[in-house]
Amino acid sequence: MIDTTTALELVLLHGSTGSKTKEIELKDALDHVLAEDLISNIDMPPFRQSAMDGYALHSNNSNRYTLVGEVQAGTSANPNLKAGEAVRIFTGAPVPDAANVVVMQEKVEIVGDSILVADSLLPNMNIRPKGEQITVGAVALDKGTTIKGVHIGFLASLGVTIITVIEKPSIAIVVTGNELVNPGRALSYGEIYESNGAMLTAVLKELGYNRTTVIAVKDDYDKTKETLQETIGNHDVVIATGGVSVGDYDFVGKALQAIGVQQVFYSVRQKPGKPLFFGKKEQTAIFGLPGNPAAALSCFYVYVYPLLKKYEGAHQVNLSSIILPLLNDYKVIGDRAQFLKARMQGVGVEILGGQSSAMVRAFGDANALVFLPEHTSEVKKGENVKTILLPNK
Amino acid sequence: MIDTTTALELVLLHGSTGSKTKEIELKDALDHVLAEDLISNIDMPPFRQSAMDGYALHSNNSNRYTLVGEVQAGTSANPNLKAGEAVRIFTGAPVPDAANVVVMQEKVEIVGDSILVADSLLPNMNIRPKGEQITVGAVALDKGTTIKGVHIGFLASLGVTIITVIEKPSIAIVVTGNELVNPGRALSYGEIYESNGAMLTAVLKELGYNRTTVIAVKDDYDKTKETLQETIGNHDVVIATGGVSVGDYDFVGKALQAIGVQQVFYSVRQKPGKPLFFGKKEQTAIFGLPGNPAAALSCFYVYVYPLLKKYEGAHQVNLSSIILPLLNDYKVIGDRAQFLKARMQGVGVEILGGQSSAMVRAFGDANALVFLPEHTSEVKKGENVKTILLPNK
Repeated sequence: MIDTTTALELVLLHGSTGSKTKEIELKDALDHVLAEDLISNIDMPPFRQSAMDGYALHSNNSNRYTLVGEVQAGTSANPNLKAGEAVRIFTGAPVPDAANVVVMQEKVEIVGDSILVADSLLPNMNIRPKGEQITVGAVALDKGTTIKGVHIGFLASLGVTIITVIEKPSIAIVVTGNELVNPGRALSYGEIYESNGAMLTAVLKELGYNRTTVIAVKDDYDKTKETLQETIGNHDVVIATGGVSVGDYDFVGKALQAIGVQQVFYSVRQKPGKPLFFGKKEQTAIFGLPGNPAAALSCFYVYVYPLLKKYEGAHQVNLSSIILPLLNDYKVIGDRAQFLKARMQGVGVEILGGQSSAMVRAFGDANALVFLPEHTSEVKKGENVKTILLPNK
Repeated sequence: MIDTTTALELVLLHGSTGSKTKEIELKDALDHVLAEDLISNIDMPPFRQSAMDGYALHSNNSNRYTLVGEVQAGTSANPNLKAGEAVRIFTGAPVPDAANVVVMQEKVEIVGDSILVADSLLPNMNIRPKGEQITVGAVALDKGTTIKGVHIGFLASLGVTIITVIEKPSIAIVVTGNELVNPGRALSYGEIYESNGAMLTAVLKELGYNRTTVIAVKDDYDKTKETLQETIGNHDVVIATGGVSVGDYDFVGKALQAIGVQQVFYSVRQKPGKPLFFGKKEQTAIFGLPGNPAAALSCFYVYVYPLLKKYEGAHQVNLSSIILPLLNDYKVIGDRAQFLKARMQGVGVEILGGQSSAMVRAFGDANALVFLPEHTSEVKKGENVKTILLPNK
């Protein structure tokens, strides 16, 4: 048995990085990771841009200017103002090269063909310099950035339509157990509905991983071996749930060994998820997660998610965490490290009820996991705890 | 001009609730909101379930039991144990009705046909009671729940395959300005690439809103009026960006008035997003967001997101917020309320650089918005601030 820090280090050490890149339309790029630095082809803004509706002046340090025209947004006009001349201008419009000040309209009085300015004029005021946000040739977003909605906006503003990303890993979820049946038919005594496959597929989809297949295996050694061999050969990441314990019918562990999967670790001093398995065969990473849904999901966020992000070459592989004061007392049973479903709210984080491994429902209210290190016997309200931010919407 | 609290109250007061429901396959239900309470058709677990690999006993308070068989997971066997008898049992298997204790295998020694138990026997230990998680007829998830991956797992475990949700609103994004061109061609002097449409479409998609259309209008009053009239007639929510200011070519405001949109408010004492417009025509909500991308995005999270969630009948309409200590000092310019791009990390929240309305890039590093109320002149490191959690992955 190893500790949680070592387990995560080993996952990241042994996890492969995907080498296949693909070009993708910007609008479809959400959640993908940039495979190379993205260089801007333009200055942004591409010209000196008015930040206001008002007047662009060629200042001669007076307060009266002759109005000689108008510059609308979107125009290609670039009137050659002489000192003492001004044009009406609008937000986003190009400031004439000859103008050095924009005055907001509220500070201006129109008198015949002239304007009177009631503002102190500072050079280039209310003008966004060309290239203020980014200059041509500069890195707009660097390799390893996970593309979010706001990045799509930023890249669109630079005229980008196609980007190069790391192809997402293909993921197989192998669910095992004679007791599992698919929703859609009634249960006989002793049966339960298979739900880990559906849950992990949905959680992966939330994170942008759509290349997921669920494969069900009965408790039969030969079948398990055959299925795992084929699945591992065809996928970048294999996540088995259940069947990795020491029970007589837990064939996954034995089958993995038989087909030559190198065990990196088995068993972590944590709750939930003590019987966590991680192994490798060639470039494929293999996880054996607990069969209990809530335990499987905790292990997913803490260990599988970082492996997927490493595969994609992302800068940030772990979920973010912050330190927050606890809102309630909590007594730990046993001395393993704890990952506790929790909710950040008010002035801190509350450890939720329903922490049992089989209880997945509390995860619906959780927006964080509180991590308590090994040998913590209890934590008190007000104590600072490490709080892992779960993906939220 | 109104304050931010009043603005949000007015948005929620005037926002309609969608009345159209639809049935959807559970696997496609991510981010949808339940239109009715979802009642469980089964007990979960559906039978008394062993929580361990071990032995199920009909206890007679001795420590020696005769082994009379085995109960595998998925079996329908329910052997009738007499007092003093035991069966081998596995995690997830149905505990025979006649058994009242499960002992973990590590606490048992096998001696011929019997087992010796080295554990104190408590009634029903290591047995998950039938219906422990939920009983038949009980509410599994209530109306107004936004479905996340973990809920899909929970509902799959109850055998649910189809759920009834509120149909998501159809959303039109109207972008205005002669200076806007679509990515894919080179810019002429005075032009910029349209990016608000792409950004808001992507941000909406991140949140599960896929019924989005982007409509571009040039700065022409008649065209603007005609387009808005048609768009408002055909959509549940219309988001215009730019053109709602007081400039001579800002036709959106005038057009909205001309076609009979009821103005609920225009202008909020906030930064960014002072010129925020909100109005209604019949059941359609109309927002006028600032043209600057970062300002538009802040307003989207603070005002549009709650309206969309209200439309869907969600319990929680606002993004969650918590109170965190600031990691840096910040000086406020002006006296409006502030929504500042920020990053939660370490022991608090840091207000990021690049707060200018035109700068969308800082949003890429942000996982929160810090809210500072009106008339805050400065905040110091260590001060507690309201921190709005942005959707993150």
